[in-house]
Order: sequence, then structure tokens, then C-alpha cells
Amino acid sequence: MAQSYRIELLTLGNELLLGLRANTHLDWLGGELAAAGLTLARNTVIGDDPEEIASCFREAWRSGEIIITTGGLGPTTDDLTRETLARILGVSLVHHPPTEAALRERFAAMGREPTPNNLKQTYLLEGAEAIPNPNGTAPGQWLQRDGRTLIMLPGPPFELQPMWRDAVLPRLRRAGYITEQCGSLQIRTSGVGESRVETELQPVFDGYPGRLQVAYCAHQGVVDVRLTSVGHSLSQEEITAIGEVCRERLGSGFVGFGDPSLAQLVLRGLRERERTLALAESCTGGMLASAFTDICGASKVFAGGVVCYNNDAKIQILDVPECLLQQHGAVSAETAVAMATAAAERFDTDYALSTTGYAGPSGGSDAYPVGTVFLGLHAPGGAWGRRLHYRGNRGAVQQRTVHAALDWLWRFLNEEDAADV
Amino acid sequence: MAQSYRIELLTLGNELLLGLRANTHLDWLGGELAAAGLTLARNTVIGDDPEEIASCFREAWRSGEIIITTGGLGPTTDDLTRETLARILGVSLVHHPPTEAALRERFAAMGREPTPNNLKQTYLLEGAEAIPNPNGTAPGQWLQRDGRTLIMLPGPPFELQPMWRDAVLPRLRRAGYITEQCGSLQIRTSGVGESRVETELQPVFDGYPGRLQVAYCAHQGVVDVRLTSVGHSLSQEEITAIGEVCRERLGSGFVGFGDPSLAQLVLRGLRERERTLALAESCTGGMLASAFTDICGASKVFAGGVVCYNNDAKIQILDVPECLLQQHGAVSAETAVAMATAAAERFDTDYALSTTGYAGPSGGSDAYPVGTVFLGLHAPGGAWGRRLHYRGNRGAVQQRTVHAALDWLWRFLNEEDAADV
Repeated sequence: MAQSYRIELLTLGNELLLGLRANTHLDWLGGELAAAGLTLARNTVIGDDPEEIASCFREAWRSGEIIITTGGLGPTTDDLTRETLARILGVSLVHHPPTEAALRERFAAMGREPTPNNLKQTYLLEGAEAIPNPNGTAPGQWLQRDGRTLIMLPGPPFELQPMWRDAVLPRLRRAGYITEQCGSLQIRTSGVGESRVETELQPVFDGYPGRLQVAYCAHQGVVDVRLTSVGHSLSQEEITAIGEVCRERLGSGFVGFGDPSLAQLVLRGLRERERTLALAESCTGGMLASAFTDICGASKVFAGGVVCYNNDAKIQILDVPECLLQQHGAVSAETAVAMATAAAERFDTDYALSTTGYAGPSGGSDAYPVGTVFLGLHAPGGAWGRRLHYRGNRGAVQQRTVHAALDWLWRFLNEEDAADV
Repeated sequence: MAQSYRIELLTLGNELLLGLRANTHLDWLGGELAAAGLTLARNTVIGDDPEEIASCFREAWRSGEIIITTGGLGPTTDDLTRETLARILGVSLVHHPPTEAALRERFAAMGREPTPNNLKQTYLLEGAEAIPNPNGTAPGQWLQRDGRTLIMLPGPPFELQPMWRDAVLPRLRRAGYITEQCGSLQIRTSGVGESRVETELQPVFDGYPGRLQVAYCAHQGVVDVRLTSVGHSLSQEEITAIGEVCRERLGSGFVGFGDPSLAQLVLRGLRERERTLALAESCTGGMLASAFTDICGASKVFAGGVVCYNNDAKIQILDVPECLLQQHGAVSAETAVAMATAAAERFDTDYALSTTGYAGPSGGSDAYPVGTVFLGLHAPGGAWGRRLHYRGNRGAVQQRTVHAALDWLWRFLNEEDAADV
């Protein structure tokens, strides 16, 4: 039974404190650590101020076992991480010729010469290993000292993320922080409220007091449950077995282990059946299409979609009959069905989904207030319209609608399967 | 000349450390404070652990002047902020009958009775004022003590944000933390690299040593420059005048003050001209349409769009000639132009934008590697195709493409204006 380690993340950058950029390192690294069975204890976000960096780092070095810093490794005068940490630890900065060679090669490829500022980046803390950065000029650093491990990484996510996976995780494994017995699992559910998920699953988790850390996270119709072994008290096999019990209890609310998107599951389901899909979007205005086109290779299944943003577009592009729009209105189950069927016909696909509604803040009527949405589904066996109502601002209504449409088609495909048996 | 205040933000929640949810409070509150001329000194993210909360709060109370906490005010056992802070400050929790009345009323409207856990939420720190929460059960708290101000807010953003604007900002003003002389301004640029923006503007800023805080933030083709008065050393008028000098130096790279989106500017430009727009998207798969439909009231200008995700769709829906696709390929300037023109015809609009390209990770050819994108623009005066190349992953290529298309049409409309003069 191995111990658990206290991990501190220090994120540097004035732009984060001014609200100019989101701190994506917290959720990305937090998720990576959790997946490896490690837990982040604290994240501190500070500006590019040497005294602030010094006081935070001193505190982290006192209480933490693994200290990760991001940012402040660049060439400019406000990049102070290297110098400040060397001062606090009482070590010197040592020139690292291989890093200089890599830097000069990188600049030569761009037809440029490094400036003296850039050469600052070729110095490492005494005793540190360089972590190569294939996507930028600043290498990371890995230092073990006084029973602690310091990991310094650059700020840009597209530099940090490959360095973490290719160089830091293997070092954490070699150093014994990550072991194979260390278990974690994410369970994804859809269409079940957070409190119902908790009610269903808590009795399972109660069987592992003090050994299982459970975190719930609800976002736009999906509830994720992350199970992590406390320390190394549960192996991956044990966590997987707990996950199977949860799957059974969740029934049709269970989506999958890990973080499969419903769009991915729908595409996979259609690909397995050699079926195709088209979309006709009004109130979601392209967001449903984006959910599919985020996935590389979607074009084998997803033919395309139409965004009909005004009534004319519905009539012209989709041939939704004008009389139908007049009789039932653009926001109606009838129009949703007509849109889906027209999309399937125009794109020559087996399935089609449609959305039409009042996302707000203006629009709506007494019968159909803001938040009212209709979904349409065209399938080889028929076509259906469904009414939904969501609270929240425009973006929230749109995202919930996208989720509901994906959830509907995903369940529909599963039920078709069940009926085939 | 007023002083500047040290502000600390403590964000509570296990889900943030496990990577299950992004910490949106940092960028939202950071931006709100910066806009009010205040600067966040530090954000600490911790889990729902009483010892961790206690040690962080002790440190924040020691070094900070305004301490903001988010989260941990709910009814469940892991909501510990109230109790822990009362303990550290050595004050008792006092029952607050108006909060209980509001809570009971809220539950009655849902046909439910509050549980004993819910009633925990009706207790305030001794000496604190309740900050009403119209969107949830947990009130916020405002406490001034020992020359410091404590602001406790609930975790859900849709509860926190209106409470901040409606109740906290006015209190900060009344308490003298925010004064009218306190200046700030955001300058938005497009199509100019971060280093060029800095080179152009730094000489301006050098005229205000120690009085002006400048932060740059580049995101997908936009570079924002945020100017904030250090303390209250520059008034809003002075900052506005500095902004005007920057505007002149930036020339056509200047987009606007504040955070106007290019989609908003394009829609406004078209609305002023009583012109309409359609889209034909391939590689951006609905993202460009989303940029417009995020904006309420877009339908007066934006008729709709087509997402053509495979060649068949381009032919069937848009009537892009098959021979053109065969001769030039689906990813070509010719196809981009044909798509834009077809979209304008099908939706009967004055303008149309189109995108086609290889967003990656697979696809592409020797001549057109992954990252190659063609944009098409149809306007009353003609139709043009343009080749671009972006590095980065699929999502980054898609977002840069969306930005480039918006930037193109925005500049095109501006130049039409200039030509009319």
C-alpha cells in the first residue's frame, strides 16, 4: 500500500489574474493527475512578480512533495520563474549546451539568430534535468532535491501538454509516484440528474470507506462520476469492478467509461450500421454540426447540415412548406419534423436531426415562452417531434438542446438494437 | 491619489482540482475587478477540506485587504466555508430570519420543505450582511472586520455573477474601494501579431512609467491589450486618451474598445447597410454559423448556412458543379468561390462566406498539407478565394479559420466604406 503525495501547482501569469485568459492548466493537469491516481492538493495563480513568486514557492516547497510550476520561462523581462526559484532554493543557474544547440537550430530553421534574452532560456537550476520542448524555445526542468520534486513547465498549453505526456509522466513513473496498482475511473452518464446519480451510486461507494474518492460533475445534461483510489488502496481491477456495478445500477443512463462524447457514440453507432446523418438547425445555429465536425473522420457518416436562421431559409433551402410554417409556426413539433425529413431528403441520408426553438433572450410567446425548443428526428422507420423546455441564458439553452438531440438519437439507436434482438 | 488594495480569491471545490470543471471564477472575477480598476493579487484553488480551507484563509486574511471566497456554501456535508471561516475569525454563526423566510418561500414555490441541512444556509458570520441570491438557496455574505473585507459567494456561476454585479460592486463602491477616477480600458486588435502590437504601442506606454499596467493577451488572431491605472494614478479620461493614441498607431489592426466580437461588428456593418449574409462551411463545420447565432437578433442579417461535410453535399445542396470539384478538388480556391456564390444564391443574400480545408489530423496532400484552408467571399461586387495555412491541432485550425473569415469580411466592409468616400 503506497502513500499519497501532496501536489501543488503554481500557475504564473498576469494575464490570468486580469481575466484575459482562462487557466486551462488547472483542469488539464488536474485531470491528468487524477487519471494517474494522483490528486492535486492546491493550485495557486499569481502574477509575474518576483516577491509573489518567492512567497508562494516557499510555501509550496514547505508543504508539498511534488511542486509543478507553469509559465514564466520565456525570454522577456517578466519571465522570472528560473531566477526566483534558484534564489529560493539556493542553487545557481547552470548553462546547458544541448539546450543552446537545440535553440540555435530552431532559430536557424526560421532564418533568425537568438537574442541574448533567448539565451537566458538555456540555463537550468543546478542539478535539474532539461525537459525538451519540441514546440517552443523554453525547455522544462525536472529537479529532485530534499525529498521533493520540482517540475517547471512553460505556459503555452500546446507546449506544456506534449511535454507532460512524453517526458513528465514517464519520469513520475520511474520515480515511483505513479504505480500500476493505482486505480481511477470516470463514469459518464446522460439524461439523469446529479442527485439521482448520487442516490443510485452512493450505496455502492459506501462499501469502500476511506479507500475511494468520489467526485461528481454535472455539465449540460451529462453527469460524470470520477472514482479515484485514496493513495493506492484500490487497484485498477478493483476500481473497474466497482465501475461495472455502477454501470448496472445506472441502466440506460450509463454512457460509457472515460469521456466519450455523445457525438462520438452516435457517429460510431451509425458507422457500425452503415447509416448516414444530416442536420437542420435553427436555434442551435451550427452548434450541433460542430459537435460532429470536431471529430476527425466524421464525414463518412455525417453528410452535412443546414442552418436555417430565418423562415425564408427554411422554405428555400429545405422546402419546408410555407403553409406548414403559417399554420403551426416556425417553432413547432410539425416544423421540426418537416425540417428533419427535408434534411434527410436533401442530403440523401438515413437519419436526420433538427432543432427549432426560442433560445432567448427575446422571442417566444405565451404558449411557447423563451426556452421552448422542439427537436425533430427522421429515421428509416418514421419521424418524430419532441418538445423540451430549458431555463438559463441563450448559450445554456443552446447547449442543452444540442445535448438533448444527441442523447435522443443515441438512445434511439440503442433501442433499435434492443428491438432487433 | 488613492491606494491600491491587495485582493485574494479563494476558490473551493474538489471538482476543480480533479479537472472535472474549469475554474471560470478566476477569469470572470479577474476581468470584473480589472474593469473596476482593481487587481487580483492571487487566486488559490483548494478542495473541500477543512484544514486546507483554514490554512489558506488564514494566509489570505493575513496578507490581503479584500478576500473573496467562492463555493462551499451549499447544504451538504462537504460545504464547509461558513463553519471554517467562523472558527478562524473567532466569531459565531448567527441565525438570519429574513434568509430563512426567503429560503422557505423558495422551497414552497417548488412544493417542497427545506431539510435541516438547508437551514444551515440561513446562518451568517457574526457581523456579516447577507447578500441575497435570487438564483439559489445560499446567500452570500459581506463582512468588514480588522480593516479587511470578506466577501463570500456561492460556487455556481449563474448564482455568483448577478450577485457580484447587483450587490457586491455597489458595496465595494460605497466602501471606497472603487472610485470614479480609477481608469481601465481594453483595446482589441485583429490580424496583427502580438509582438507587432507590442512594438507599436510600447512607446506610448513608456510615457507613463509606474502609472499604467499593461497586459497583452493573444487568442486565435485577436490580440487584446488591457490598460489599467496603477492604483488611481490615471483617470478614466486619461486612459481613454491613451487608448485613442493607440487606436491611431494600430491603424487597420484596431477593432474596438472593450470586447466586441468580429461577428458582432460584421453583423452591425451589414445591418447598417441593410445587407444580408449566408454561409457555406466545410472544414469549420458549423463553427462560423455558431459565431453569428450566439448573437441574439442575428436573424435580421444572417439568413443561414450550409455545412457541406462531404463532396456529395457540396454538389446536392449547393449545386457546386461536379466537374469543378473533379478538376480543382474540394479544397481549392475555385471550390471556395463556388460554395460562397452558391450559398448567396440559395439563401438569396448579398454576401456569403465559405470555408474548405484540411483541419487535420488526417487528410491533406503534398500541395495542400494539413492546415491548408481556402476561404471564399461572395459580395455584390464580385467573388474571391483566398489560401491560408495554419499550424496547430484540428480545433486550433478551425478556430483560426473562423476568425480569418470574419476578419476578411469585416475589413472588406470597411474598405467598401473607404472606397465610397
